[in-house]
Amino acid sequence: MAGGESDGSGLVLLDVFGSPFAQRVRIALAEKGLAYERAEQDLAAKGDLLRRSNPVHGKVPVLLHAGRPVCESLAVLQYLDEAFPGTPPLLPADPYARARARFWAEYADRLHLCGKRLWLRRDEEAAEPEAREGMGAVLRALEAELGGKELFSGEAFGYVDVATAPFAAWFLTYERHGGLSVGVAEECPGLAAWAARCLRRESVAANVYPPEKVYELVQEYRQWVLGRK
Amino acid sequence: MAGGESDGSGLVLLDVFGSPFAQRVRIALAEKGLAYERAEQDLAAKGDLLRRSNPVHGKVPVLLHAGRPVCESLAVLQYLDEAFPGTPPLLPADPYARARARFWAEYADRLHLCGKRLWLRRDEEAAEPEAREGMGAVLRALEAELGGKELFSGEAFGYVDVATAPFAAWFLTYERHGGLSVGVAEECPGLAAWAARCLRRESVAANVYPPEKVYELVQEYRQWVLGRK
Repeated sequence: MAGGESDGSGLVLLDVFGSPFAQRVRIALAEKGLAYERAEQDLAAKGDLLRRSNPVHGKVPVLLHAGRPVCESLAVLQYLDEAFPGTPPLLPADPYARARARFWAEYADRLHLCGKRLWLRRDEEAAEPEAREGMGAVLRALEAELGGKELFSGEAFGYVDVATAPFAAWFLTYERHGGLSVGVAEECPGLAAWAARCLRRESVAANVYPPEKVYELVQEYRQWVLGRK
Repeated sequence: MAGGESDGSGLVLLDVFGSPFAQRVRIALAEKGLAYERAEQDLAAKGDLLRRSNPVHGKVPVLLHAGRPVCESLAVLQYLDEAFPGTPPLLPADPYARARARFWAEYADRLHLCGKRLWLRRDEEAAEPEAREGMGAVLRALEAELGGKELFSGEAFGYVDVATAPFAAWFLTYERHGGLSVGVAEECPGLAAWAARCLRRESVAANVYPPEKVYELVQEYRQWVLGRK
């Protein structure tokens, strides 16, 4: 099984530990209690298995199940629900609740897109007002959707929680890079409390870097990218 | 039911006839034989119902079912499968086939994104090589996925076909605006044949403008947008 080749029956995750999209899949696998082999990928020198498994995007995560690749983090989460019906479901059973969950899980991707506009900028002084407002709108929309609940998914840690949880560790980075006039905790107290709960949850804590470490890594990555431009 | 308010039990589609994303939903409703009321929206002066139904994006399509809004075209398609299990399913039954279908339906969104980069440009002479290459890569990826089949979904017109079908009417516009050295029909003969079949299919023909009309409307829209810049 060295090198991440599947033995034909199990689960192999083509992974990058720090990728929030790969983290979604690891959190889901942990919540479901599914064993898997983790194959860390080097995105700067993509291996043959990754290229073959995700020829369209060449990105992680890719979950190989019995050797067959499933790509795109949210498609993988739904696949895990459908291929392993004996495990705790991520999506609720009710069609309307499922549609809402799909909407908000997709929406969580905006944290990544807006976040990148905040921290991957040239100007050392302040983020563009537009990027800052964009992130503010996303955080407030998530706060409103949470609406005082402990979890997005209601009683059980579910699809939207798993899709959003990796970004809980990024809120500190958004604050420091966003020059946000009001921090996440002040403006979005429900979301901030949800994030703190997430980071204490075993499936999340084991699979994301702590917020200070995320900030450090972002600083390093930022210098590297800006240095190349 | 005037103004698109639901009577509390039926299906009401907040729609824009020319929107490829709204077209996905109309095609799916037609394939499933579900009756619905169409409420055309004015995106330049968004009404209260649209704002209330999709407060996050304020976009069409929104499907109201018994008064409850379902947003985002692909979430609506999946909702129709799950809320109306007696109708012909769009997604296949097999979990792996479902995951693949979800991947490719999402991928079809790139036609819209890459298309916009081709036709919404200032330079009258030629599209940026980057935008042209991007569209070429998307078309070739779809050609490869189709792989000589009559339909993306295999035997029945399914999820990926519905998600991609509205763009069949846009291929002419991509060609004329892309300055593509080899047209869709020459480089992607399978995809071009699939598009021609789609446009003859009743559910599609009734719900999309013909390719020449799409091109005309794009020219008008383009002049309007570029004139405002």
